[in-house]
Amino acid sequence: MRGVIMHGPGDVRVEDRTDPVIQEPTDAIIRVTAACICGSDLWPYRGAEDPQWPIPMGHEYVGVVEEIGADVSTLKPGDFVVGSFFASDNTCEICRAGYQSRCVHATGLDGTQAEYARIPFADGTLVTVPGQPDERQVRGLLAASDVLGTGWFAAVAAEAGPGKTVAVVGDGAVGLLGVLAARELGAERIIAFSRHADRQALARSFGATHIVEERGDAGVAEVKELTGGLGAHSVVEAVGTQESMMQAIRSTRAGGHVGYVGVSHDVELPGLELFFSGVHLHGGPAPVRRFLPDLVELIMHDRIDPGTVFDLSLPIEQAAEGYRAMDERRATKVLLTF
Amino acid sequence: MRGVIMHGPGDVRVEDRTDPVIQEPTDAIIRVTAACICGSDLWPYRGAEDPQWPIPMGHEYVGVVEEIGADVSTLKPGDFVVGSFFASDNTCEICRAGYQSRCVHATGLDGTQAEYARIPFADGTLVTVPGQPDERQVRGLLAASDVLGTGWFAAVAAEAGPGKTVAVVGDGAVGLLGVLAARELGAERIIAFSRHADRQALARSFGATHIVEERGDAGVAEVKELTGGLGAHSVVEAVGTQESMMQAIRSTRAGGHVGYVGVSHDVELPGLELFFSGVHLHGGPAPVRRFLPDLVELIMHDRIDPGTVFDLSLPIEQAAEGYRAMDERRATKVLLTF
Repeated sequence: MRGVIMHGPGDVRVEDRTDPVIQEPTDAIIRVTAACICGSDLWPYRGAEDPQWPIPMGHEYVGVVEEIGADVSTLKPGDFVVGSFFASDNTCEICRAGYQSRCVHATGLDGTQAEYARIPFADGTLVTVPGQPDERQVRGLLAASDVLGTGWFAAVAAEAGPGKTVAVVGDGAVGLLGVLAARELGAERIIAFSRHADRQALARSFGATHIVEERGDAGVAEVKELTGGLGAHSVVEAVGTQESMMQAIRSTRAGGHVGYVGVSHDVELPGLELFFSGVHLHGGPAPVRRFLPDLVELIMHDRIDPGTVFDLSLPIEQAAEGYRAMDERRATKVLLTF
Repeated sequence: MRGVIMHGPGDVRVEDRTDPVIQEPTDAIIRVTAACICGSDLWPYRGAEDPQWPIPMGHEYVGVVEEIGADVSTLKPGDFVVGSFFASDNTCEICRAGYQSRCVHATGLDGTQAEYARIPFADGTLVTVPGQPDERQVRGLLAASDVLGTGWFAAVAAEAGPGKTVAVVGDGAVGLLGVLAARELGAERIIAFSRHADRQALARSFGATHIVEERGDAGVAEVKELTGGLGAHSVVEAVGTQESMMQAIRSTRAGGHVGYVGVSHDVELPGLELFFSGVHLHGGPAPVRRFLPDLVELIMHDRIDPGTVFDLSLPIEQAAEGYRAMDERRATKVLLTF
């Protein structure tokens, strides 16, 4: 099969890979019908992470079940499925508490930017989509697989809800879908930090009521100005840098909630400032699986249309161009077709 | 009046101070009937903070209202009252959300280790005690003023409750009363970290079901051992050092809650580890005022007896010896009498 491999920073190639096979009786093999490039794929691309090269890329996917292991009971070949970026049994104590990304059996995936993928703990990991999604719904489901699920978790972690003012740091796909999640959760006002006209427009389409172009302490000052000097009730952090984390914490009122999902590279949180901020801080790798059933339902009933975050669609053979476009911020989110 | 002044690290003196007077119509003057020395008073005592010397000491108190300003409506001279270490209006949006320690008018107190004290925003800050407390209840109310209220907040922030395993880092008065709070909140198991026999005994009397003597990663390993490898649901952090914070975070399962109330000196939280821990982190200066009415009721009905944390009682003229005893860990908590 064909699949995307990163050989080092900036070096993305599409190559022949061995077709995956069932290894455990709880596995399923799926034919990937669409995949995408994640903001987090840019960390190794930019040299901010140094993994064991080469690495098969991709952890977002929708597809059709091809084959199931002997112990898989909830899926059958032909089912249209969506999963998230961690395989999880969905039965352990941590999963049952809603933290499937930290399942005691949590395991990553072997690169879903490929024609086929092996999904461990298939019963726990995959969610069957009722019926046959149309093209728009496929895009939505693919978004649910990671960026929507992650933005949703961040908004939940930030306790977005009725009567709340929610601020969102980061105008990438996750941040933008954090805006959508905050709207769906009933937030009264949603402030999106963004200085890019196209992303501002998308943020507004997802429910942002205010746009703040300033960053850092100047951005914080604008949020304070909009909230009677107090700060937002809820802040979604979807970048993962020192500046973005401090902007998020400082934009939050005492007793408010920061939901952070940007992978925190080179971040050191100063203890005294955090202490006196009095905020709640919660985040980490999003337990997307917790939200997938509800998200699938919202998407299949056309209640939400998160797939509009994909602004570039490329055949998998052109994956390298997709990485370049996201790296250079020419694209917010790239969909790969097969 | 007589009052305690710290002139520099280790230099505590009892001196004549000017009697406080009403400055604002929302003030009250109280005659302090008991005060105490706080673990946080040891930070400047040990040179870990460098305030503008000299500083009047003390922020925990119970007493009798002597005089009220023109706008005070809920108190009258002769009322027995308890307050906490921040004055707060209890009417602003932040107070109404339960974060009185971050009231938009929050202000510290001018040293309550003294015969009299001026309490700003008296209606918001002070809680009237019904009837006349006996000596044991006075000790309990004095504990409620800070250490109990703080331990209680930490246990609430850690979401201690039925079915939960709660671990408590720190066997000072706040940590010990965090144990009591976890018990009152219905925790199933309570693990106290302590290597001092007297404090272990007190922890058990407050509801600890397990004692762990190891610290750091060895202590974390014992908590994991007791929790099927997962970690505690809830962890109270009541020390405020890098080691104690990391011990608390690492003792918590993914999706669990850390409630931290130790003033975080020289703490830098590593972003990536915090991210992948998946814990909830909440803490800061405890909004003791939120809990005071309930705590007063529990104490006046003899449902809890937090005053047993006081293991040394001294007349105010011997305050310096009280500081030494706490600094040298000869005393857990020192009560000052007048």
